[in-house]
Formats: sequence, structure tokens, C-alpha cells
Amino acid sequence: MHDVQALLFDVFGTVVDWRNGVARQAVSFLEKNRVPMEPTDFADAWRRRYQPAMEAVRSGQRPFVRLDILHRENLEAVLTEAGINVAVIDPAELAELTLAWHRLDPWPDVLSGLARLRERFIIAPLSNGNIILMLNMARRAGIPWHTILGAEVVQAYKPTPAAYLRTAELLALRPEQVCMVAAHNNDLAAARDCGLKTAFVRRSTEHGPAQTTDLHSEQDWEVVVDDFEALADALA
Amino acid sequence: MHDVQALLFDVFGTVVDWRNGVARQAVSFLEKNRVPMEPTDFADAWRRRYQPAMEAVRSGQRPFVRLDILHRENLEAVLTEAGINVAVIDPAELAELTLAWHRLDPWPDVLSGLARLRERFIIAPLSNGNIILMLNMARRAGIPWHTILGAEVVQAYKPTPAAYLRTAELLALRPEQVCMVAAHNNDLAAARDCGLKTAFVRRSTEHGPAQTTDLHSEQDWEVVVDDFEALADALA
Repeated sequence: MHDVQALLFDVFGTVVDWRNGVARQAVSFLEKNRVPMEPTDFADAWRRRYQPAMEAVRSGQRPFVRLDILHRENLEAVLTEAGINVAVIDPAELAELTLAWHRLDPWPDVLSGLARLRERFIIAPLSNGNIILMLNMARRAGIPWHTILGAEVVQAYKPTPAAYLRTAELLALRPEQVCMVAAHNNDLAAARDCGLKTAFVRRSTEHGPAQTTDLHSEQDWEVVVDDFEALADALA
Repeated sequence: MHDVQALLFDVFGTVVDWRNGVARQAVSFLEKNRVPMEPTDFADAWRRRYQPAMEAVRSGQRPFVRLDILHRENLEAVLTEAGINVAVIDPAELAELTLAWHRLDPWPDVLSGLARLRERFIIAPLSNGNIILMLNMARRAGIPWHTILGAEVVQAYKPTPAAYLRTAELLALRPEQVCMVAAHNNDLAAARDCGLKTAFVRRSTEHGPAQTTDLHSEQDWEVVVDDFEALADALA
């Protein structure tokens, strides 16, 4: 790891708690529009459509569109599936709820950990979230990225290899000079296949108290820790 | 201007003093390699090749390449024109001098002005400089961008309209919600043609004490000021 100059972070789940953040912001919308779902179930249902929606882009079925667009489409699909006639909902309300993903809170260790890491490394998100989503999130929460990188910049969704390789290339770094930080083994596996270094941060409640996935590292990642303070310790 | 949400900054000349910065970093190289040029003349000669090099990309003669590549090519051309056999120079020295553009100092009013402006607006460079150039410059100088935007992100060099329009689109803003800040009338004219708001910051010594260009605003830009503190005052 001594040659690493940049840390690239997965964001949804790794940096921010999307499930509770989306659920919190959906409460009044669900009540007002009589959507028969618990807020966390609604967040889970919305998130379940995330990978399939990106897969349509990754597979070439449709051209690259930013995640805000996919989030909006997925929101309408979730509501329709719940028996709601989306056409009668005020479009401004749908647009506003779609922006819930811009207003997620970091896990408690994130800001202090990143403040330490940014002194030594370039720190940037490598998320499938689009630029303005990441920027609004960072401004609201005070996340001190050096810049926003990610799927929209390189026009490729993770885990497509181009998402990792083009990002390293933009930084004028070789893949092994970059470390991917994520709470998801599949993200790290794809990054490693591209030659990046890898750091696993366990987020055992990303999917709620009954989470069964990504509780353990599935490969010998260069770093395995429980939070960003421990990541900063490991890389000190 | 009341609807403006993002300020996009030209960088070379507007934010940083490229001429003195390049000259300072060229001194030892020029001496060691017996290049018969004064450091500021060398900086001017290097910079004169900037627009023609980008024009090859803008006109479609060659695909988009980042500015670091053009800077390297232009450096070799300047040295060759000065009678130097570039082939005998250590490539690492050429690479190092090319990075002089990553290590330029802001004008004295920049950091304090941007610290005020970032509280109210999204602030980002919209420079022809590439991402890692802007990022290294910002880290070294402490420039507090919210993110790096610019030619490399949108794969178009200013003043091509796409450079302005695609950048506004990445921010999910209409052109009139974005203000271009520059010391160059032609940059602002192109931005205005795309519907952006415009702010002219006079930098009367960008080209040295005998500067004759861009001493005055050539259109009725929305804001005309002498430094970034005055820009922050005007937008307060």
C-alpha cells in the first residue's frame, strides 16, 4: 500500500447510510400519498431496483444516463408496484423525493476519518451516483472530497472495468497507486481485477439490523476495518 | 444574478498567476540545459502555443487529449524553436517541468474571496486544464473548490459551446443559473452566447507589466471587479 496516492470511495452504504436517510425523507410523502409501505421497506424496494437499472446501461441496452434519472424511474416503478397511480402525484413532489439521495447522512466515523486521510491522500468518491448528487451530499454533510469522480465523469457504471480504469487514468495514476474503499466485496473484487488496491470497511447495518450480506471480507483485501478512523489508523 | 447557484472559474490568469509561476519553476531547467531565454519570455512562448494546440482539438483535427499532453508537446516545440535538441534532455526533467502548471500560485485575493463565495455558491473551475492538474494545484495552494469541473470532464475545450453547456447540465442547472468568472473577455463572450451569466475580474498583470489585452470589459458583463474580494462583495 506504500505506493497508493489516491483513495476512491464507494458512497452509498460505505460513506452514507442511505436506508435510514431515504426512509426518514419518505415518511410524509408515503403518508400523504397513502402508499401502503413502511419507510424502510420503501427504501429497500427503491434500492432493489438500483442494480437492474444500471445493468441496462452496463449491458449496452441504453446509453449512459445519470443516476438521478434512474432513481426517478425506479421511484415511479416502486410506487406503481405498490398500487399507486403515479400520474396523479404532483411531479414536483416526485422530483423532490428523488433528491432524497442527495441528502443522506454519513456514518458517524466518516468526517473525522476523511479529515485525517485527506492530509495524505487524494480522496474522492468513485460512486455510481452522479456529480451533482455527490456534490450536494458533500456540501450538506461537509464531506471534504478533493473532487467528485465517479460513474458520470467516466460514463461507466461500476463494476464495469472502465469505471475504475478511466478514473485512475484521469488521476494520471497507475491502477496500483489507487485504493478502492468499499463496504461491498463485489466492488472490491472488480477493482482488484483492474489492478487497484482494496480496503474493506464493514458496514453491518447498511441493510438494517437483519443484514446478511457483506458482513465479512470475502478475499484478502489489503485493508479490512470497521470504520474510517480505523482506515486512517491502518494507512497512517 | 439572483438565480445564480454556481460560479465557474477560468483558472490560468483568473485564479493563478501562470506567468510568474512557470518562469520561477523554469529558471534552473533553462540554466542547466543552456536555453537562451529569459524565464518570463520562456513562459510567454510556452503559453503562446496554448490556443493553437487546443484549436487542433476544437476543430476536430485530433481527438480530445488532456492539457498535460498539450503542455508537454508545446514545451518540446518551444525548446526546439530555441535551438535545443530535445532528444538529449532527460525525459524525467521534461515531465517535471511540464508539471509546473500544476504548481501555480493564486493571486493574493483568491483564497479569501473563494472562502466567502463557497458559502453561498457552488464553486468549481471551468478551465481547459485537466482534472489532475487542477486537483494538484488546489491541494498545493489550498483552493477550496467543491469539485473539479472543466474541459476534461466534458471532453471539450473552451470556448467551444459544449464546454459551458455540458458543464451546466452536469450541475442540473439551466445556463442562466451559472455564472462564468474570468479575466478574459472572449471566455465571457462565449459563456454569454450559451446563456450563462458573466463576471469579469480584471487581471492587469497576467501577461506582465506591459499587458495590453483584457484591461477593460468589452461588454456589459453582469459583474466587473478587480479581485475576488470585490466579487464576493458584489454577490453578497
